[in-house]
Amino acid sequence: MDAVQNYIKTNKDRFLNELFELLRIPSVSADPRHKKDMLTAAEWIKQNLSISGVDTVRVYETAGHPVVYAEKFVASNLPTILVYGHYDVQPADPLELWDSPPFEPIIKKTEIHPDGAIFARGSCDDKGQVFMHIKAFETMNITGHLPCNVKFMIEGEEEVGSVNLEKFCLEHKEMLACDVILISDTSIIANNIPSITTGLRGLSYVEVEVIGPNKDLHSGVYGGGVANPINVLCAMIASLQDEDKRITVDGFYDKVIELEEKEKKAVNSAPFDIEEYKKSLKINAESGEKGYSTIERTSTRPTLDVNGIWGGYIGEGAKTVLPSKAFAKISMRLVPDQDPEEITDLFKKHFMKIAPPGVSVQVRPHHGGHPVVTPIDTPEYMAAHLAMKDAFGKDPIPVRGGGSIPIVALFEKVLKVKTVLMGFGLNSDDIHSPNENYGLFNFYKGIETIPKYFANYTSLKK
Amino acid sequence: MDAVQNYIKTNKDRFLNELFELLRIPSVSADPRHKKDMLTAAEWIKQNLSISGVDTVRVYETAGHPVVYAEKFVASNLPTILVYGHYDVQPADPLELWDSPPFEPIIKKTEIHPDGAIFARGSCDDKGQVFMHIKAFETMNITGHLPCNVKFMIEGEEEVGSVNLEKFCLEHKEMLACDVILISDTSIIANNIPSITTGLRGLSYVEVEVIGPNKDLHSGVYGGGVANPINVLCAMIASLQDEDKRITVDGFYDKVIELEEKEKKAVNSAPFDIEEYKKSLKINAESGEKGYSTIERTSTRPTLDVNGIWGGYIGEGAKTVLPSKAFAKISMRLVPDQDPEEITDLFKKHFMKIAPPGVSVQVRPHHGGHPVVTPIDTPEYMAAHLAMKDAFGKDPIPVRGGGSIPIVALFEKVLKVKTVLMGFGLNSDDIHSPNENYGLFNFYKGIETIPKYFANYTSLKK
Repeated sequence: MDAVQNYIKTNKDRFLNELFELLRIPSVSADPRHKKDMLTAAEWIKQNLSISGVDTVRVYETAGHPVVYAEKFVASNLPTILVYGHYDVQPADPLELWDSPPFEPIIKKTEIHPDGAIFARGSCDDKGQVFMHIKAFETMNITGHLPCNVKFMIEGEEEVGSVNLEKFCLEHKEMLACDVILISDTSIIANNIPSITTGLRGLSYVEVEVIGPNKDLHSGVYGGGVANPINVLCAMIASLQDEDKRITVDGFYDKVIELEEKEKKAVNSAPFDIEEYKKSLKINAESGEKGYSTIERTSTRPTLDVNGIWGGYIGEGAKTVLPSKAFAKISMRLVPDQDPEEITDLFKKHFMKIAPPGVSVQVRPHHGGHPVVTPIDTPEYMAAHLAMKDAFGKDPIPVRGGGSIPIVALFEKVLKVKTVLMGFGLNSDDIHSPNENYGLFNFYKGIETIPKYFANYTSLKK
Repeated sequence: MDAVQNYIKTNKDRFLNELFELLRIPSVSADPRHKKDMLTAAEWIKQNLSISGVDTVRVYETAGHPVVYAEKFVASNLPTILVYGHYDVQPADPLELWDSPPFEPIIKKTEIHPDGAIFARGSCDDKGQVFMHIKAFETMNITGHLPCNVKFMIEGEEEVGSVNLEKFCLEHKEMLACDVILISDTSIIANNIPSITTGLRGLSYVEVEVIGPNKDLHSGVYGGGVANPINVLCAMIASLQDEDKRITVDGFYDKVIELEEKEKKAVNSAPFDIEEYKKSLKINAESGEKGYSTIERTSTRPTLDVNGIWGGYIGEGAKTVLPSKAFAKISMRLVPDQDPEEITDLFKKHFMKIAPPGVSVQVRPHHGGHPVVTPIDTPEYMAAHLAMKDAFGKDPIPVRGGGSIPIVALFEKVLKVKTVLMGFGLNSDDIHSPNENYGLFNFYKGIETIPKYFANYTSLKK
C-alpha cells in the first residue's frame, strides 16, 4: 500500500483545499432560505466525484433536497461497498458564539488537536468525513488499488430526518444493491483510543404548542384568573420525568430491552473519566436516570430533552404580558426495540391527556428514526476492526453511540444490508454546536484507513 | 359648564388629530433603540402643554428617560391638583398579530365601540388618557373655568418600573407639593358601568437564567447524561406553584392580608359574568388559586406568571441540541402588605435553593412596585365619584384593580398625598397586547369628566 500512502502524502494540501470549498457552501437543510445552497453543495460533490474517477454520477431530485449518487464498477465477481454520507449540515446558530464564521473554514491548533483542526460547520458532521471517502476512492482508483466495486449515496436531509430517503431507496433498490454500507458519521473515543460504533439510538422529535387565551393579555388585569400557557407548558414538561429522571409517558419503556449483565459490563469497560467529563463541560455534577452510569445513560438508555422553548416577551427589559401561546421542541432518543412512530404516538396521547383545563394543546411530529445495534462477528465488522488496528496500531473498541442516524435501520429494512459505522470524529468536535471542528489527524487518518477497509473486506468476502 | 361642553365639541377633531401625532412617536421605554423617540415624545408633550396654556413647562433629564413637568398657578388659597401620567408605552411585539401598524393610529368601529376606537400602541395606556388631561386643562383654562392650581408630571418610565421617579420626587418635593394626585391609567367596568379603582397590586419582576454545560451540546451524544437547562428551568418553574395554584416561594404569603368577609362581599358584588369572560378569551375554563373567585384572583390575590421564556433552538425545523442555557422572565403581582423588595429577595433565595445539581442559576431583579389600597371616604375620592356620576348618569362602583402603578405607593411615601385613580379604559382595550385601542366615547367622556372633578374637588376643599 505504499503507492496509496504516497499519493495521500503528495495530495494532502489539495485534499484540504477541496474540502474547504465544500465547507464554504452553507448547506443548512433545516432552513428554507438555504434551499439553493443545498443544490450548490450537491452539484459540487457531483463534480468532485466525477474528477475523482467514478464511472457515472448524478444528482437525483427528491421531494426535499437532492441525493448525489455515483458508482465505479470493477468486476461482477467482486463485492460492492456502498458509501453513505450527507452533505447537509446543522443550523449554525447561535452565531454569536462562534469564534470564527461557521462557513469560512480555518485551521487552528487546540489542546486536543496540537496538529490543528478544521473549524467550520460540517467539518466533522459530515462533510469532512464524507469527503475522506471521496478522496480515499480517488487515491485507490488512481494508484490502481481499488479492490472492489463502489457506490456512493450522499444525501442532503440527514439533519432533518432523511425524510425522503426511504422513497429514494425503494425506487432505486437495484441501483443501490450492495454487500455492505460503510458510513463515517460517528466518533472514536480518542485519537489514541480507536473505536467502532456498534449501536445508535433512535429518535422521536415533536413540536408542541400550548394555547391559552385568544390573545396576549395584561398580566395585571388577567393574572391569577387565566391559565398562563408558559406556566402550563413548564408544568407539563416537568411532569414528563419523575424524580428518578424516568420518563413518565405511558408505555414509554414497554419495549426497552435491558442490557444483559455481560453487555452492561462491556459498555462500562470503555475508557471514561467522569471527572474529566464534568470538567470539560464545566458542570458540577452529572445528571440522569437513576440506576445507570453516564455511559449507559448516553448510549443504552432512552432520553427526553427539550431542544428549544419559546413564548411571551423575550426582548430586552420587562413586559408584563400573559401570552396567548407557548411552544417547545422536544426530542426523545430511543433504544432497541422502541419504535419511533409508536413512541411519537404515545407521547402525543400522553401530552394531550395531561393538558389542564383552560388550555388546548397541539403536538406536531418532526422526523424520527429507529434505534440499531450492529453485530460484531461479521466480515463487515471484522474488516473495519482490522483496518483501524492497522492504521492506529491498536485494537478498536466496540461502543454503542448515543446519537441517531435514522437511515441505518432503513437500509437494513429496504436494502437488506448491514451497515458498518466507521467514524473518525471525537465527541469534543462540537458537532451541532458553535465552533464545530475536525482534527487534521482525524481527516488524514480516515483517508488512510478507508483503503485498508476496502482491501480487508474484499479479501474476507472472496 | 356649557362653555366647557361647547369648547370640547368645537375642538373635538383637533384634539384627536393632536393625539394621533403623539401616538405616532414609538416611545417604547423598554427598548434602548427607542431612546431618541422617548425624547421626541417628551418634547412633543412639552410643546402641547405650552400651547394649552400652562405658566411653565420643562423637560427634566433623569438617569433614564425624561420627565415633563408643567404648572399653572391660579391662587394660593386654592387647592392644587397634580396630574400624573406617562408617555412611554409597552413594546409592540408580537408585531405580526397587529391588524394595523401599532404606531399608525386609525379609527375602527368594533362591537364594544360602535362609535369607533383609536387603534394604536399607547392609545389607552397611557397616552390617550394622559392627553385627556391636557385637553381638559386647555378647555378649563381657555373657557375661564379652571377652578384651582394644577401641576403635571408626565414621565417616560412607567412601563419599566418608574425606576428614576423616586429620586425625581425627592429632589423636587417642593415643586411637586399638592393636595391630591389625579391619575387616569386604569379602567371602568363598561361604558355603561362606571367605576373607580381603589386598589392596585404591587409587582416583583425578575429574569432568571439556568446555566448547564459550557456550550450547546449534541443531544444524542450527551442526552441523558447531562442536566438540560430547559428541562431544569421548566421543573423549577413548575415547582413554584402547588396543585392548588398557591405559590410555593418560602414566606410568600406571610404578609398577605386576607379580605374581611365584608370586603370580600363588596369585591364580588361588582358586575362580572364568568361565561362572558371565558367566551371573550376563547378559553374553556378559568384557572387560579383554589378557594377564590376570578375577581378575587385577579385583584386581591398575589400571582406568579411567566411573561417570557426562551432557550435552545427556536427556528424552523428540528435541531437536536442540548442547550447551554435557558431563560425566563417571571413576574409576581403583590397585594397588601407584601413588599416588592422583600418578595424579590424571597424569590431569589428560593429559586437558588431549588436549583438541582448540574446547573447554576442567576436571578436578576427588574423593577418592582408596592401594592396600594385607597380609601373611599375622602374628599379626593368623593370628588371623583360625583364627577363620574354626573358624566355617566350613574353611581360609579369602587373596584380593586389587578394591575400595578408602582408610583402610587411612592407618592404617598414621598409627597404624603393621596392618589385618585380615575381611569376611563376598558379591560378589553388590549393594553400591553396587539391591537391596543381606546374608545372615542371613552376619550371624550374623560375630557368631559375631568373638569367636573376639578370643580367638585375645589368646592369640597374650600
